[in-house]
Amino acid sequence: MATATAPAQAGQSSVEIGAARTPPPPMPTIFLSGSANPNLRDAVELALGSRFIASTCEMFPDGEVLARLDESVRGFEVVVLQPTSPPVNDHLMELLAIVDACRRAAATRIVAVVPYFGYARSDRRDGRRTAIMGRLVADLMERAGIDHVITIDVHTPALEGFFRVPMDNLTAVPLLADALRPRVLPNAVIVAPDVGATRLANRYAMLLGLPVAVCQKQRVSGTEVSVKRIIGDVSGRPCVIIDDMISTGGTVVECLRALREAGASANAIVTATHAVLVPGAMGKLSAAGVEELIVTDSIPLTPETESSTPRATVVSVAPLIATAIRRLLSGGSLRELY
Amino acid sequence: MATATAPAQAGQSSVEIGAARTPPPPMPTIFLSGSANPNLRDAVELALGSRFIASTCEMFPDGEVLARLDESVRGFEVVVLQPTSPPVNDHLMELLAIVDACRRAAATRIVAVVPYFGYARSDRRDGRRTAIMGRLVADLMERAGIDHVITIDVHTPALEGFFRVPMDNLTAVPLLADALRPRVLPNAVIVAPDVGATRLANRYAMLLGLPVAVCQKQRVSGTEVSVKRIIGDVSGRPCVIIDDMISTGGTVVECLRALREAGASANAIVTATHAVLVPGAMGKLSAAGVEELIVTDSIPLTPETESSTPRATVVSVAPLIATAIRRLLSGGSLRELY
Amino acid sequence: MATATAPAQAGQSSVEIGAARTPPPPMPTIFLSGSANPNLRDAVELALGSRFIASTCEMFPDGEVLARLDESVRGFEVVVLQPTSPPVNDHLMELLAIVDACRRAAATRIVAVVPYFGYARSDRRDGRRTAIMGRLVADLMERAGIDHVITIDVHTPALEGFFRVPMDNLTAVPLLADALRPRVLPNAVIVAPDVGATRLANRYAMLLGLPVAVCQKQRVSGTEVSVKRIIGDVSGRPCVIIDDMISTGGTVVECLRALREAGASANAIVTATHAVLVPGAMGKLSAAGVEELIVTDSIPLTPETESSTPRATVVSVAPLIATAIRRLLSGGSLRELY
Amino acid sequence: MATATAPAQAGQSSVEIGAARTPPPPMPTIFLSGSANPNLRDAVELALGSRFIASTCEMFPDGEVLARLDESVRGFEVVVLQPTSPPVNDHLMELLAIVDACRRAAATRIVAVVPYFGYARSDRRDGRRTAIMGRLVADLMERAGIDHVITIDVHTPALEGFFRVPMDNLTAVPLLADALRPRVLPNAVIVAPDVGATRLANRYAMLLGLPVAVCQKQRVSGTEVSVKRIIGDVSGRPCVIIDDMISTGGTVVECLRALREAGASANAIVTATHAVLVPGAMGKLSAAGVEELIVTDSIPLTPETESSTPRATVVSVAPLIATAIRRLLSGGSLRELY
Amino acid sequence: MATATAPAQAGQSSVEIGAARTPPPPMPTIFLSGSANPNLRDAVELALGSRFIASTCEMFPDGEVLARLDESVRGFEVVVLQPTSPPVNDHLMELLAIVDACRRAAATRIVAVVPYFGYARSDRRDGRRTAIMGRLVADLMERAGIDHVITIDVHTPALEGFFRVPMDNLTAVPLLADALRPRVLPNAVIVAPDVGATRLANRYAMLLGLPVAVCQKQRVSGTEVSVKRIIGDVSGRPCVIIDDMISTGGTVVECLRALREAGASANAIVTATHAVLVPGAMGKLSAAGVEELIVTDSIPLTPETESSTPRATVVSVAPLIATAIRRLLSGGSLRELY
Amino acid sequence: MATATAPAQAGQSSVEIGAARTPPPPMPTIFLSGSANPNLRDAVELALGSRFIASTCEMFPDGEVLARLDESVRGFEVVVLQPTSPPVNDHLMELLAIVDACRRAAATRIVAVVPYFGYARSDRRDGRRTAIMGRLVADLMERAGIDHVITIDVHTPALEGFFRVPMDNLTAVPLLADALRPRVLPNAVIVAPDVGATRLANRYAMLLGLPVAVCQKQRVSGTEVSVKRIIGDVSGRPCVIIDDMISTGGTVVECLRALREAGASANAIVTATHAVLVPGAMGKLSAAGVEELIVTDSIPLTPETESSTPRATVVSVAPLIATAIRRLLSGGSLRELY
Repeated sequence: MATATAPAQAGQSSVEIGAARTPPPPMPTIFLSGSANPNLRDAVELALGSRFIASTCEMFPDGEVLARLDESVRGFEVVVLQPTSPPVNDHLMELLAIVDACRRAAATRIVAVVPYFGYARSDRRDGRRTAIMGRLVADLMERAGIDHVITIDVHTPALEGFFRVPMDNLTAVPLLADALRPRVLPNAVIVAPDVGATRLANRYAMLLGLPVAVCQKQRVSGTEVSVKRIIGDVSGRPCVIIDDMISTGGTVVECLRALREAGASANAIVTATHAVLVPGAMGKLSAAGVEELIVTDSIPLTPETESSTPRATVVSVAPLIATAIRRLLSGGSLRELY
Repeated sequence: MATATAPAQAGQSSVEIGAARTPPPPMPTIFLSGSANPNLRDAVELALGSRFIASTCEMFPDGEVLARLDESVRGFEVVVLQPTSPPVNDHLMELLAIVDACRRAAATRIVAVVPYFGYARSDRRDGRRTAIMGRLVADLMERAGIDHVITIDVHTPALEGFFRVPMDNLTAVPLLADALRPRVLPNAVIVAPDVGATRLANRYAMLLGLPVAVCQKQRVSGTEVSVKRIIGDVSGRPCVIIDDMISTGGTVVECLRALREAGASANAIVTATHAVLVPGAMGKLSAAGVEELIVTDSIPLTPETESSTPRATVVSVAPLIATAIRRLLSGGSLRELY
Repeated sequence: MATATAPAQAGQSSVEIGAARTPPPPMPTIFLSGSANPNLRDAVELALGSRFIASTCEMFPDGEVLARLDESVRGFEVVVLQPTSPPVNDHLMELLAIVDACRRAAATRIVAVVPYFGYARSDRRDGRRTAIMGRLVADLMERAGIDHVITIDVHTPALEGFFRVPMDNLTAVPLLADALRPRVLPNAVIVAPDVGATRLANRYAMLLGLPVAVCQKQRVSGTEVSVKRIIGDVSGRPCVIIDDMISTGGTVVECLRALREAGASANAIVTATHAVLVPGAMGKLSAAGVEELIVTDSIPLTPETESSTPRATVVSVAPLIATAIRRLLSGGSLRELY
Repeated sequence: MATATAPAQAGQSSVEIGAARTPPPPMPTIFLSGSANPNLRDAVELALGSRFIASTCEMFPDGEVLARLDESVRGFEVVVLQPTSPPVNDHLMELLAIVDACRRAAATRIVAVVPYFGYARSDRRDGRRTAIMGRLVADLMERAGIDHVITIDVHTPALEGFFRVPMDNLTAVPLLADALRPRVLPNAVIVAPDVGATRLANRYAMLLGLPVAVCQKQRVSGTEVSVKRIIGDVSGRPCVIIDDMISTGGTVVECLRALREAGASANAIVTATHAVLVPGAMGKLSAAGVEELIVTDSIPLTPETESSTPRATVVSVAPLIATAIRRLLSGGSLRELY
Repeated sequence: MATATAPAQAGQSSVEIGAARTPPPPMPTIFLSGSANPNLRDAVELALGSRFIASTCEMFPDGEVLARLDESVRGFEVVVLQPTSPPVNDHLMELLAIVDACRRAAATRIVAVVPYFGYARSDRRDGRRTAIMGRLVADLMERAGIDHVITIDVHTPALEGFFRVPMDNLTAVPLLADALRPRVLPNAVIVAPDVGATRLANRYAMLLGLPVAVCQKQRVSGTEVSVKRIIGDVSGRPCVIIDDMISTGGTVVECLRALREAGASANAIVTATHAVLVPGAMGKLSAAGVEELIVTDSIPLTPETESSTPRATVVSVAPLIATAIRRLLSGGSLRELY
Repeated sequence: MATATAPAQAGQSSVEIGAARTPPPPMPTIFLSGSANPNLRDAVELALGSRFIASTCEMFPDGEVLARLDESVRGFEVVVLQPTSPPVNDHLMELLAIVDACRRAAATRIVAVVPYFGYARSDRRDGRRTAIMGRLVADLMERAGIDHVITIDVHTPALEGFFRVPMDNLTAVPLLADALRPRVLPNAVIVAPDVGATRLANRYAMLLGLPVAVCQKQRVSGTEVSVKRIIGDVSGRPCVIIDDMISTGGTVVECLRALREAGASANAIVTATHAVLVPGAMGKLSAAGVEELIVTDSIPLTPETESSTPRATVVSVAPLIATAIRRLLSGGSLRELY
């Protein structure tokens, strides 16, 4: 083979090319946020040690939103922080408006940090004539100009495949497990309130050294009626119900009923990354005997929620987001944040 | 030239090909609507003589929307009726969800009838670092799968160019002029409340045989302060202020002030296609001396608005929409509806 | 409201427009197939009563494929039948080649019937730096020109959302349940070999009036080792292991081991829609005590497989595909085929 | 195999489905043309027996073009006839403008008949930093909305691959061969003026029963100078130089020089599909001894050209285009027009 | 809230990330121009202090253009200077060809500086079946590969929304106002020759401290005839007619007639950014009494124009373009150039 | 002209802007390869002096491929080395999978080095209803996310135009000519085995100072039978048959037969860049009298081929690829590698 000349050629250039494995230099970056979660914005700003620039996200009296940037973003990578929490359509349009403004202002690359990703549960049609909102929202985001998406504990793993652009899904489970640890008794059990949450329950169980039980919906043969049954041993044990999000509280309430039928101890701790908590949800949880709620600040709690029972403990995802952004910009690995 | 053989060949086929100018056969069509304006949906159904199929546009407790179709639309052209009136973001997402559901259910072609088109005023950046929401919304609609858009008296003619798909902008001006005719005195004057409405004022003036005046914002040299001045003779005349939409009422109120300074008679009729009328707008108009408001049903009036002063006369655009759809489907010309 | 004139206008046209709800006329259609499953092609041809046109799918000596159509498809809707079974990459490229040839030959619309859809299991990255092959393949198919996809019992429901074009996922479960019915004892139990198959197991259980058990992988706390455990009562019962596909047989073998530990009766029937059955799979199944295998002809069995034990019973999906195509073309509902 | 039920099901529907092989019904079609070749438009109209609708292709005093349609094209398939002959950029922009007008007027499908396709010679970069204009023009046409392209004897077969939409390349060679037949002596030879025209020469040779010679450019070793040499026996024979187009005449003149050196008889007939014939070209051809020029009317001859020597015989491609359009619309095969 | 750990983490990294607000480093850039305005290219080169690389923009004898780059642009940002002035189609195709050559040569980003943007007036259909050329041209430019567009005093602000890529519209009004200042008397008035130019007139008026008048087209009721009337006080005053461009001169001539009827003083200065000035325009302006013409060099004046009356004063936009490019590359704000 | 102020402005900034012509700094780059040619990967690694990172390209038992990256590529330019040699579909899908993984892992730019590009011969339809596989593969590659393609001696120059992204086609002809030089006698002749290879033959001829002959397929008038004839003087001369690739050897064998009829000396050397060499090809070549085969390592030779006759001499393209990558990254010119 005539490769004899290659090493010599390579030798002379190995110095500059061989250094290519050093991480790419951090891109000049600008941080922006929408109006969905100002407290989280402040916390990320603090955790990151980097100021967010002012952007005006006006909502006109007729409900139309408009984004305006106060500083030039030309040539910068822009990181936009905006959960698409309720009112989900307003927060989504605001995010798209900010992205449009950044793209037209010639930003080089636009990263959307969407700690809570609305519409993620609509990920299939299941034989019905519906929309697939998760894919639709992914398409709208890409069309507006988003180049990279960061989420936390997103409801469906398929969301990654709905995007063509890179999507990194971080997890708050270790943070929530840390908050749970001092609160759980040694004989507690981690409960997945439906089959879809089994995987998540396993993650908590591994971190806390506890067993898992699953609340499974079972159809009674020949009828349309379904009942919830607990798989796994829960009798006499205190339970920690975990989920990615709590919205109306209905799933948790049904799970608690099944737990009690299965002989679990009366009260329970509920843990979830995203506290959607629609009006009325706290009342339901309280009435069903939930003692404590451990959630993150991916979505801001309303004052009503904060002063209701069950007592809500809020763990901040700001350090998680700050670390992810820092690694994203400096080329470090995001894998241990998954 | 060697074309001698052509006529013979043509002759034998002129029968079948020569008939091509007959309009294309009407495509099988299905009518759907979102939840933004059920009364208009009913009126169009009546005017068209064709039933709208049921579609369920759920809004979940957390504000997420989902569209579900009750009948197969496979192979049909689908006409979706949904103004993107306030709450604009909810109505827009609902429209996009319906379109996504239709596209996934294999509809052949999707026509969106958007009698009031939200975000149409955001059509330029004017040197600021903002979004251009009109183009963004056009992109979102095309991405969701809309193939043709029908609007009425849209705020900016540039909207057509924001779309790649066909857009037809109908006009309710003749309908509103018919309603105005018995109400205006012979010495009345049509007033455009800003320069942008001049063209629209000319259309009313032509139909009613009345002169035009324009209320122009003028910057006072050397200062940032601008004043409104009336161009044209209004002294002692009753005025009809016309516009494409009334939102907060601010523009009309300023115009009335300038009209009074110019000696116009005290009260005025206000006519606009789209009654956005945010809370508080009716009070402002009433306080400023508006006697009567003539609008269309492109946006449903709230019960509060209907029972307020000034008295609101509502002209239905349902016959206009029905005629447009009928011609759209049967290949007739839409030009006289412009 | 000024809608009084609408009914009159509507009346005159209600005849032609009101008839719009009749299904759209069947489009002229041409049927084509690739080389992946000629027996299924013949069976569908028979079931449909409509000839497939000849297309030459050459594979050159160097492995490149080329599609050539023997008849004009200009102006036709084309239905292409090709499972992307092993050798998956060759069958996929052949499908794309046929689609490219049809698009360039001016077919109006291209429907791909892909009874077995390869790469459907690769639907997420799960924190690793991998491709998402399911989405990649969907993109390649759309790029080549596929307008509609029909699959059967596809591995992941998210596949629908990976496509922008319509995708209908039919099911062979009722056909397979019919074949199972005379073979199962009254005390049998339907076993899902992993959590992901629970939903499928429920469908079989409902159709056959049998209970469900699930074989769940459980991680032993603090270690990387996982064990399989049976959830549900199987002791002394004959088992029917169901899955969407059988590839290496490994999952079934592990499940059988767990079933035996849980006291199930020795032998089992295995049912799956797709018989991928890589070389060696039949031996494994036989050694593990599988008595009978019930599969469909979505993938052709090799002669070796047909003559091996366990005995393989093949149920044809040809009537299912034929019915789906017939409804697709005539506008009937596909819902009961899901 | 459980296919027993299939035939029955098929039987009941074989009547309507089995008829699918009948050609699709002709779509309602409208014919339009740009301003590049009004005589050809008239000839096609005559050959087709179908009127072209009026479209106004204005060119403003500053050179901007604008297309305006006089009739509705909504729901029609539109066929636009426009060669992109010189001034090529004006004719191309006119074509794109007409297509944009048709797309915005909701035409169903737009077929561009481009008898002479400008920029087809720019099909590769060959190691230089140039544009590939052929692909660029294909992209512009697709972007404007062209769904199908019909050309005649296009310079490069790769043009098909530059388009994603269907492209059909017709040939005028049989028409030109018919015109040549009475003019050539039995000992004549068909001459390809460069290697690229060899294939075309073979087509003429087959139709006329004559041998082929090729004029090949050969580089003299070690220098940049290239000479033209004739491959094949031409001594004492009358020559017919054929090519797809004649632009400056330079290639033909060089070929004639080489033919004379090789002992061919003094004068020659020149045949080409496209008579680009820039100013000065006719003089060159005449001076070089060209006796007669046989071309088509794909490009209109200027009055100067028509009154110059060599005498130009024009064969009309109108019947060819009319036949192609007729088959295109009625589903017949285009293959024999290639 | 559990955010206590955030500041510590942030502290350690605030040094490197906190520096992100420094502008991004200038990208390595290459300057290119088409053939439309070589004098402006030279002036920009001088003002920028940076050499333009040679590119060969050939036009073949048949009118086809081809771009060829003499140096490698791989990895560079490329700035291409080319007004699309008459012959607009040739200059546009040349621009697209250069862009195609740059994209294929692997330029990183392509900025088109189009000082005069042809086709910008075609920005709506207004109920007619026409093209929207402004959007079409924007689409063609994006398709060819333009990533950013810089224009000067573009005719329609909607052009921004026709592009998805960033577009910055600079203004030459301050430069032209500087040139006007010594030439205008204190009692002069700035005249907008139609309503569309009112905004532009206001900018001049503010800079020069002069009042504004508007020449408005008014339709005479009941007829198709329209007359031009002057709004504002012009009697006895010298007038400065301003516009974004002068093409045939017709608008100015009509305006002058109306000014005279309104008693303005006989002669006038005319100022416009873009001197399209088709043949015959100068004669019209001269005959109508225009004393002086103040324009920029966005379009090169023909020698005939330069030697005609009215005397043309040319203000160079080269410093404006050079400043914009410099800020574009170094991250400075473009806002004060608007 | 008012350009007087420009130089001053330029002067102050000429320092930083004037430096723009220095080449762009090398981007941080990561090298990856698929499994198609591990020896070539090692040789390029050596020639480049830069390590390839590990990527796992699994092929599952059912033939599905999956790519997994072992290191982060976020923010890097990635160079992927993978010829699409047989099994072409597997190697192509593997390349697309790697590209998908890199895109999802947020690589900045993806360059595919495809030394042998499969499917390049399918570049036209030629009037048949086939696919154009070359364009299809280009579309699939672009869709997966390839930003730049590097090939060697690709079969058709049109491939460049099938891509929108930059494609650079290197040549191994100088390397192969170097290997040929000591082996050819002074009276040898370079033979193109068909007309399409004439250009390639000229390149060899220039480098070696030898004459060219062409083997041309000629149709016998009136029949479908074609014969091969040699153009050029080969009598008594030793021949070097050159081509871009050797697949079945059929073309070479036919050429040798024609050479012998034309009186060339008995044996021949065969040279080609790409040694596809399907099973059986070596036997054919040997039987036909080929003495020696000179090829590159763009495709790995099988052990069978290496031990067969004719003796195969392999020239490595690794230095060529390494030099191209080095220049690509450092901004040097690639032109002399063409």
